[in-house]
Amino acid sequence: MVAIDLAMTSTIGQPVAASPFGYTLETTDPASRARLGRVATRHGVFDTPVFMPVGTQATIKTLHPGEVERLGAQIVLANTYHLMLRPGPELIDEAGGLHAFMRWNRPILTDSGGFQIFSLAQQAKVTEEGVRFRSHIDGSLHMLTPERAVDIQAMLGSDIMMALDHLVGLPAKPRKILDATMRTHRWLDRCIQAAATSERPRRGVLFGIVQGGMDADLRAMSADYVASTDVAGIAIGGLSVGETKAEMAEMIDVVIPRLPDNKPRYLMGVGSPEDLWNGVAQGIDMFDCVLPTRLARNGSVFTLDGRIDLVNRAHRNAFVPIDEACDCETCQQFDRAYIHHLFRAREILGLRLTSVHNLRFLIRQMETMRAALVDGTFSQVRTAFLDRYRVAGPRTGATV
Amino acid sequence: MVAIDLAMTSTIGQPVAASPFGYTLETTDPASRARLGRVATRHGVFDTPVFMPVGTQATIKTLHPGEVERLGAQIVLANTYHLMLRPGPELIDEAGGLHAFMRWNRPILTDSGGFQIFSLAQQAKVTEEGVRFRSHIDGSLHMLTPERAVDIQAMLGSDIMMALDHLVGLPAKPRKILDATMRTHRWLDRCIQAAATSERPRRGVLFGIVQGGMDADLRAMSADYVASTDVAGIAIGGLSVGETKAEMAEMIDVVIPRLPDNKPRYLMGVGSPEDLWNGVAQGIDMFDCVLPTRLARNGSVFTLDGRIDLVNRAHRNAFVPIDEACDCETCQQFDRAYIHHLFRAREILGLRLTSVHNLRFLIRQMETMRAALVDGTFSQVRTAFLDRYRVAGPRTGATV
Repeated sequence: MVAIDLAMTSTIGQPVAASPFGYTLETTDPASRARLGRVATRHGVFDTPVFMPVGTQATIKTLHPGEVERLGAQIVLANTYHLMLRPGPELIDEAGGLHAFMRWNRPILTDSGGFQIFSLAQQAKVTEEGVRFRSHIDGSLHMLTPERAVDIQAMLGSDIMMALDHLVGLPAKPRKILDATMRTHRWLDRCIQAAATSERPRRGVLFGIVQGGMDADLRAMSADYVASTDVAGIAIGGLSVGETKAEMAEMIDVVIPRLPDNKPRYLMGVGSPEDLWNGVAQGIDMFDCVLPTRLARNGSVFTLDGRIDLVNRAHRNAFVPIDEACDCETCQQFDRAYIHHLFRAREILGLRLTSVHNLRFLIRQMETMRAALVDGTFSQVRTAFLDRYRVAGPRTGATV
Repeated sequence: MVAIDLAMTSTIGQPVAASPFGYTLETTDPASRARLGRVATRHGVFDTPVFMPVGTQATIKTLHPGEVERLGAQIVLANTYHLMLRPGPELIDEAGGLHAFMRWNRPILTDSGGFQIFSLAQQAKVTEEGVRFRSHIDGSLHMLTPERAVDIQAMLGSDIMMALDHLVGLPAKPRKILDATMRTHRWLDRCIQAAATSERPRRGVLFGIVQGGMDADLRAMSADYVASTDVAGIAIGGLSVGETKAEMAEMIDVVIPRLPDNKPRYLMGVGSPEDLWNGVAQGIDMFDCVLPTRLARNGSVFTLDGRIDLVNRAHRNAFVPIDEACDCETCQQFDRAYIHHLFRAREILGLRLTSVHNLRFLIRQMETMRAALVDGTFSQVRTAFLDRYRVAGPRTGATV
């Protein structure tokens, strides 16, 4: 625990954006914190709870945007870090923004680039001004400040921009986590200011990010701070990084009650089926994760009984779909045996078919949750799912 | 030239198959040997002249069978060599044949495996009995005889089977080419016999293959021999292997007049736009080639003016389709700039988008040819195409 004696509210409180963003809370589960809602953006509405497929480099890996739409995806995520390095925000701005560039006409959320700088880039060095780092592609030197993070995302034209945050690898000394959390708050103020004064015509709304490591007091303090600002939504960052599922649940439990009811809540980087069910029960509205598509490209697919590995020889002559109960385009048409062959023969169609299945599996879980919230049966349906689904391991994170 | 004094007709003349195969010659171009026709198979009809996309390992690389159908593909090719090694003909037979396995309900042609044995396999050794070789995948030892080639293709359930032929790498001594050509004829007799006596329920019809290297006399002799047999169609093999375009044209000119009008003629391994136009003018009905999909995966795409390389930096901010005049799903929706980005970022969607374009480009050429044959304008339309299209080089073959 860290002693805390710090300002708890932001001094910056002006409106973030003039765009028609809005969150409507429709109903709440009587037996948990789960909630049904709806988020309006300039590119249409998405229903919550929602899972956002990740399109790191302006493409959901292996898939065509038409396929992503047919999956039932209502919003996708793109990564500012990757896009600022290649093809560069100027080019995407020239294309008319990310929606026009990648031919996706529904909502897009962009992260700030912070997470990838700390996980992918070389020689990342944090100062109060921002983060200096070298590109993992060509070693070129870059500087990302809160203002630049907002400006790049405004050039990309995403509907939801994320504030730049300072992440520290865990475990770390309490003082270091406290410093990073406080810097995240100061950077949030600068992001709010930058968004409010941006003149980019395609600028979206801004979400703030709660940090604080695995320290409950810091998490509470950070939640209070972000809740006090005039952001459009609130994310919980720095989780699903390898901690236990119990630790992650504890941090979420600390944060959620301190957040306002009238803004969407986004748990960053979470995307295993069990974590989605549990996160929604704890009051989360939005999720993203590379897990379903990364697993898919390794031949690992979700079923209602848990993950199975299609590369395994057991599926060589399995003339049955991945999941008899699945409504995805893959399960409607192809057998495990054929997909097994495609993986053995290293054929790209295999990666496509499993990516479609895994994403549809998660999106269907969200549809099931939303229907159960309408029916008032969320907690029973969740229990039924979790009783059957065999969890891959006790820790969080996109382990493949 | 090689002195020839050999039997010119086959002794085997019984019907090849009981399936509803048939070729209808509909019209002929007055100014060339080009012909419009139609081929009926158990899996429906295809129009000729036709280009067959290649699905080496039971998948047109990077594409979904639904996409291939939307390209206008009427028939696809699959490779016996690859499929006999992986997943094996027994497994595909158990799946219900190749159509069921790969979910393609239109006609399929399979090659015999011969070409790949001589180009891909290790330690290929030819005897009169057949070819012994080692798998390029795991080094395992295999034997392919004419009878086994037919039996494997009958297990695959392709609509059109190819006879096993003996290819020699060029240049080679005349005696060696003669020997291989004569062996090809003897093997053809054995293939015809094997097909006639096969009890596989999904067995298709058999095409014979004309060989003879770049020797006009040998080609003529081989054409006469194959024409004398009761095969369902006649292929010209051993071309498009790096000879000049003039040499290829000369060999085709020797062979075509010796073939019967009432059977389809298939030029194996040919697929550049100019070679398709010229081949049809010389009387060819069917073509296949990996060129369009292989080029596509390297970022090289067809336009009416010639090939362009989308990886080239010139396309970085080209917010225009690959080809303004193209009706493919890629050109209808995506810009060169986005595809350039996908290739630079090594994203699979890039390979898909260019594969769709290149295949559609060739299939559209065939549609244009067929329409011109109906209108009686084939030769004018061909001249207009060739006058505009910048050819990549003077030699044949799938150079990328």
